This record gives sequence, C-alpha cells and structure tokens, in this order.
Amino acid sequence: MTAEIITIGDEILIGQTVNSNAAAIGEQLHRVGIEVGRMVVVSDDHHDILRALRQARDEADLIITTGGLGPTHDDITREAVAAAFETDLEIREELVEAISNRYKSRGRDVPESVRIQATVPTGFDVLNNDVGTAPGFCTTWDISDERRGFFASLPGVPAEMQAMLVDEVIPRLSEVRDLRQIRSRMLLTTGIGESVLQEKIRDLVPSPESGLRLAYLPNAGGVRLRLTAVGDDPNHIDEELDALEAALRERLEEYVYGIGDENLESAVGRILSKKKLTIATAESCTGGLIANRISDISGASTYFLGAIVAYCNSVKMHALGVDVEALDEDGAVSETVALQMARGVRERLGADIGVSTTGIAGPTGGTPDKPVGTVWVAYSGPDGETAVLLKLVKHRGLNKELTTTAVLDLVRRRILALDVEADVQDRS
Amino acid sequence: MTAEIITIGDEILIGQTVNSNAAAIGEQLHRVGIEVGRMVVVSDDHHDILRALRQARDEADLIITTGGLGPTHDDITREAVAAAFETDLEIREELVEAISNRYKSRGRDVPESVRIQATVPTGFDVLNNDVGTAPGFCTTWDISDERRGFFASLPGVPAEMQAMLVDEVIPRLSEVRDLRQIRSRMLLTTGIGESVLQEKIRDLVPSPESGLRLAYLPNAGGVRLRLTAVGDDPNHIDEELDALEAALRERLEEYVYGIGDENLESAVGRILSKKKLTIATAESCTGGLIANRISDISGASTYFLGAIVAYCNSVKMHALGVDVEALDEDGAVSETVALQMARGVRERLGADIGVSTTGIAGPTGGTPDKPVGTVWVAYSGPDGETAVLLKLVKHRGLNKELTTTAVLDLVRRRILALDVEADVQDRS
Repeated sequence: MTAEIITIGDEILIGQTVNSNAAAIGEQLHRVGIEVGRMVVVSDDHHDILRALRQARDEADLIITTGGLGPTHDDITREAVAAAFETDLEIREELVEAISNRYKSRGRDVPESVRIQATVPTGFDVLNNDVGTAPGFCTTWDISDERRGFFASLPGVPAEMQAMLVDEVIPRLSEVRDLRQIRSRMLLTTGIGESVLQEKIRDLVPSPESGLRLAYLPNAGGVRLRLTAVGDDPNHIDEELDALEAALRERLEEYVYGIGDENLESAVGRILSKKKLTIATAESCTGGLIANRISDISGASTYFLGAIVAYCNSVKMHALGVDVEALDEDGAVSETVALQMARGVRERLGADIGVSTTGIAGPTGGTPDKPVGTVWVAYSGPDGETAVLLKLVKHRGLNKELTTTAVLDLVRRRILALDVEADVQDRS
Repeated sequence: MTAEIITIGDEILIGQTVNSNAAAIGEQLHRVGIEVGRMVVVSDDHHDILRALRQARDEADLIITTGGLGPTHDDITREAVAAAFETDLEIREELVEAISNRYKSRGRDVPESVRIQATVPTGFDVLNNDVGTAPGFCTTWDISDERRGFFASLPGVPAEMQAMLVDEVIPRLSEVRDLRQIRSRMLLTTGIGESVLQEKIRDLVPSPESGLRLAYLPNAGGVRLRLTAVGDDPNHIDEELDALEAALRERLEEYVYGIGDENLESAVGRILSKKKLTIATAESCTGGLIANRISDISGASTYFLGAIVAYCNSVKMHALGVDVEALDEDGAVSETVALQMARGVRERLGADIGVSTTGIAGPTGGTPDKPVGTVWVAYSGPDGETAVLLKLVKHRGLNKELTTTAVLDLVRRRILALDVEADVQDRS
C-alpha cells in the first residue's frame, strides 16, 4: 500500500492553478522514503470529495488532502472528511481563542468565521498553522494488527501547507511508519547547458541496477542534478552518494556552485560572509530582481548594503554618476554604461563589490542593432572590472531571471578566485 | 458525467515535475465548455494505469491520458489502454513509414523503436503528432443511445501534447459533443481579508441552483473572486455574469482593483500612465521586490523612475537623506524613518510619488517592542504623506510579499483619489 494525495479545488480542475501543492508533498514524502501511488484532484463538491476520500481509504495507507479549509462557504473539506471517517464535527474553544489571538496580534478584527476555522472532526488531532490562520487536522486508523493508516488535511495556501507538512505532518508520520531508506541530494550547477553537461558526465551516470539514480532538472538558475540512492543501510547509501557526488564535482569543477536547498544567492551570500565582503547592485533591466534575490537570504544585511534601480537615464546619471556622453554615444545598453553603473554603485554605497545590468528586457524596445534580449552586465571589485554581453530571449520575465542568474554567477566566480587580503591591500 | 484527466509518470508522483499538462488540458476543456470532474496521476505501472482507466470509464464520459507513449521500456500506456478497452495492439505500417520519414527528414537514423511508437490499440484512430515522433490515439464508446464516450491518449512532452490537444483532439470532440457554455471571470480584490469579504457579500452569493458560482481564491496579493456561469445561451450567461460583477463591484467599491489576468502592479501601472504620474521606491525590508514587481510590467519605464534599496543605515542616510537622529532615536523601523525614506526617494529621483518600506522581515532580528513582522510603509505624493504600520507574520518571504501588496495597494488608493491637475497646481 502507498500514499495518496488529494487536492481539492475547482481552480486546479479548470487549469487556472497548476497543482504545485501535490508536487511539494510528493517531493517531501519521497525524501522520507514514502512512495506516492496516486494523486487525485477533485472539485469543491461534497460528493466528489467524499468519493475520493473513500476510494483513497480503500487503496492507500497514507492520505494527505490540501485545500478547502478556509473560512468561506466553498470550503467544505471538514464536512467531507468527517463523513468519510464516520465522525462528527466539533468546535474547539482553545482553537477559537488561538485563531482569534492571531487576528488580534496583527491588529485585525476577529471575524465571525473564526468558529468555522476552529471546527475539526471529532477525535482528530489539530495540526498547527504558524503561517496563516486555518489549522489542519489528522488522525490514524487501524488497517491491520501491525499497521495503522495515517490521514492529514492541510490548507491550500502553499506557504502554509509546506510549513505544516514539514513541522507537523512528517514528525507525526515518523511515529507510525518504519521508513525505508531513500536518500537524495541535489548538486547545483550553473553556466553549463543540459546537453553539454550530459555529454561531459555520460560515463559517470550510474546503471539502473545500481540502486543509484541521476536526474537532470533544468531551470532558469542552471541545471540541478538529483542523485538518489535506495537501500536498507543508510550508511551504505550515504557512501554511494558521497562517491557519486565526488566524481561529479571533480568532473564539473566550478560549474558546481552548491548542494541541496542552496541557491545561487545563498551560495554568493555564504562566500561574501566568509570573505567579509560587501555588495551593492545597480540595476536597470532587472528592475530590482537581483537585490530582491540577495535579500531573500536571512542574514543578508551583513553583506548586502543596498541597490540603486536606475530605470530611467536621469537616475543612471544622478544616482550612479553615468556620463551623459556615454549615454548619448554608446546608448544606455552598452559596455561603457554597464561598467560605469557597477563602479558608481560600488563607490557611492561604499561596497567592496558593485554589479550592474542594463538591457532590453522586452517584449518591445528592440532595434536591429540591439534586439530584445540584448543585455550588458558588469562587475566592479577589488580585483578589477569586467563586463559581459548576454544575448537572451524574447520573454521579459525570463530575461530578468536569466540576467540575474548570470550576474550572481559572475560574482560567485570572481569572489571564489579572490584573495581578499592581497587584493584589499592592493586597493588601499 | 464529466471529463477525467489521467497523467501517467513517476516524475510527477515524486514531485520532480509539476503537473502542468493536466492544467493545460483543464484550461483548454474549460474554454470549450467541458467540465473536468477529476484529475488523477498514476505511476508507470500496468496495474495502476489499468485501474485508473477502469475507474475513469465508470465515472467519466471523456477521458484524456498523457504520458507513457515514448519508445522505452517504461512507456506502457498502450498495453494498459488496450486492456482497459478489451482490445489488442497492432503495428500500423503506414505509421512506421511516417515516423521513419520524420527521423530521416531531421537527418537522424531511424531507431528500431519506431515500431513500438507505431503500435496502437486495434480499432482506435491515430492522432497525428506534428511536433515530435510519438503519435497518440483515440476512440469512442457507447454510453447510452444518445451519448458516446470519448477517449484520447497523448504523449507527455508538453509542446507535443498541447499542439495535439488543439489540432487533433478538440475538433474530434466537437463531433461527439454538443458543447455547453461555461464562462468565468476573475474579480480581483485586495486590502480585505477572506472572512470579512465573505461577510460583506454574503447576500450576493448565488444559490447553487442558479447556474452561477462564486469562489474565493486567496493569495499574498489579495482575494480573487472567480465568477462562473453555466448555461446554453452565451448571451444570457454573459448577462448573468455582468449583473453579478456589477453587484459585487458596487458592494466592494475600492477593494476591487481589477479583473482577469491583471495584478496589482499592472493596475497601479495603468492608473499611473493614465494620470501621467511617475513613481520611485525606497526599500529596506522588501529588498527590491516592489521595484521588481513594478518593472515586471511591460512599458513600466514610462512611469517607473527607479528605486533605492537601502538595506543598511548608511545608505538610508546618504542616498535617501534620512536623519541620523531619527535612526538613533526612533530606530530604522519607525514611522519617522519610513516617511523620510519616501520623501527622500521622491525628491532625489524627481518622482511624483515616493513609497518606502522598513521592517523586520525575519526570521531573526525581532525584539519584544518590534517583533518579526513589524513593518512601517510610507507614501509621499502631491496629495501629502502617510505612513502605515503593518503587523505581519514570522515568514521572511511572505513578509516581503505582504508588504509589497500593502504598498502597491496604498499607492493605488491614493492615486485613484488624486485629482492630478488640482494637486499638481498646488505643488507648483
């Protein structure tokens, strides 16, 4: 028997929302060694939810639902769960108080519907929601003398669902399950395309019989390699993963920037912290996305001083000191302006490193000389300056993403190679 | 009876791939008026696929599967479909030739597996694949004297699947279905919580029998209201939707900021453009997210001048003109500093409107006086200045999102009410 994930919501069925919650749960369960046998999406309809729950109870021994726990009339998961588990609903006064306090602490009035959100099936445990207001609930049932089924209902808001899955569901699950060992780790690469990468490591790919698996997961930040090992002995599978990771790292060298949940901005942050360097950004076509990414990392305030988003030329001139001649002669999208922007933000904000972007994000604004997707990025640091021309795509959002990735990777490579003491001495 | 979408593939179940194919099919079917009752994901396993197909045949009258039609050993959809429809498999020689020609025309060798891809269930029609090599197949079956069921299998590669859905499946479907009309539109609200919203419009919610439905879809940007109408006469259902939309707009007044695919940043951009106003942002805790959102809108360069991300106090002082006294006495997270930042960026970048954020995004950095989630935002414009205290959550990413939403909504309300000519005259 296996796990089943039930997503409740019309917005998924009509294709308005992609079912990212089911993917997040599938990934999390896979990580702890639980196989998901089926995912089902049903509408906000009592009979559909009830039928799905009954089928799941016949076929799965772990069931997780998301959605339909809000305070409004179309949130009817509670009723269907109570019906499927043949129990009643009850209002928990301690939950009424806890949710009310949550509203009050945010300076908001307590709505009447707080009593709906404090309603759970009789006999179920409450799953706390530290991010939002709607709690979840869970229960177990006997499948056989040795085996108990586990059921949990989580809200549909992704940030709430994910926090509750990790903090509330997985720990309870570990009490009722002997988990098989599946381990996987993610090796993060950037600056190399999927095909070239594949050719480069072809002979290192494990055979299907080895119990080791390698998957390529490309996105706008680079290609992530997922290494997975299955077995009974955790030490043995860790050793296998270590060996594969070492071989891949040796082959791919500086294309590998991190591992696991790290991303390019946290890798850059880690190196900046370690080398006690500070950074500032001067952004035109990325419009603040690099600053936004850098500031997503908790603790960024120790190395990130700030940014100047210079969307119009007058800001480029007055806030960053770009020459009017450079703008007139070379244009805003040029090597000269990119370098002046990086230098300008570095000097004016007093940072060790300044980076810049200027380009045509699209979809309009291209010329024959500088089509949409033409972007200059630059770096200015204690080890000198450099500018790089990127020729990207026709898609505005993707151009912002790809430019941000290129800049963060440029910074990473420069500061990895940077001998801080020597260079800072040069500078002084 | 309704449609069911079956997605076949382990990569979905382990959360490696988000099920975007099901969303694309759901959206397409919704557009032509077919209601999707259920989506199911199963693994690349004969019995799981067969069971899902049999359940679908009992419950749905339109079934579409994706995945498992490739040339490798784990592509086993053909066998399961033949079993579910109690027929055999046959190799179609005309398909062998067609697929072989496709390989040859791309200068590639014809692989042996071409015969696998040319295998379809006996009696089924072939669905051509102009994008890739694997064809799909479809059939119909009798449900009653008047009604036939329709079944189609499509490959899992999204670009192939989508082209075949539009070019091959929908036209065949129109031959066996009198399509009902389903229309929906999205009314976008912000600045009002789901519970309060529900209480405010309780009496406007259509009864289940009316053929009109109203759903609440909350996210970090606000609560979206989806209005759906079902019927035979497209003019009539449009009128019904118009009436419901008008009633909701009248009741909710300025909480409604847009409709359809619009978002808060495009609504703000639309109003700024119309009133010929410019904006600049001064961001601390949002780290550039507001600028990033504003610059996501194509054409933003006509009203967005730029941003100063002042992550450290020295940038707040030197780039924005914040007083050292204010920082020392009130602290960086204070009404005074927020107002000085908004005024500073407005004056220094020469914008009509300046907005600012300063707060404790978390997860660390909170104090008893100013816990994580304490954020001050401010507005400075031709109509004066204002600052608002937000008490948000413990989640860094969500705090950035919620603060950005609050600022964009603050701007929207101020500029909606702003009589540009009068105010600009006052200013001069």
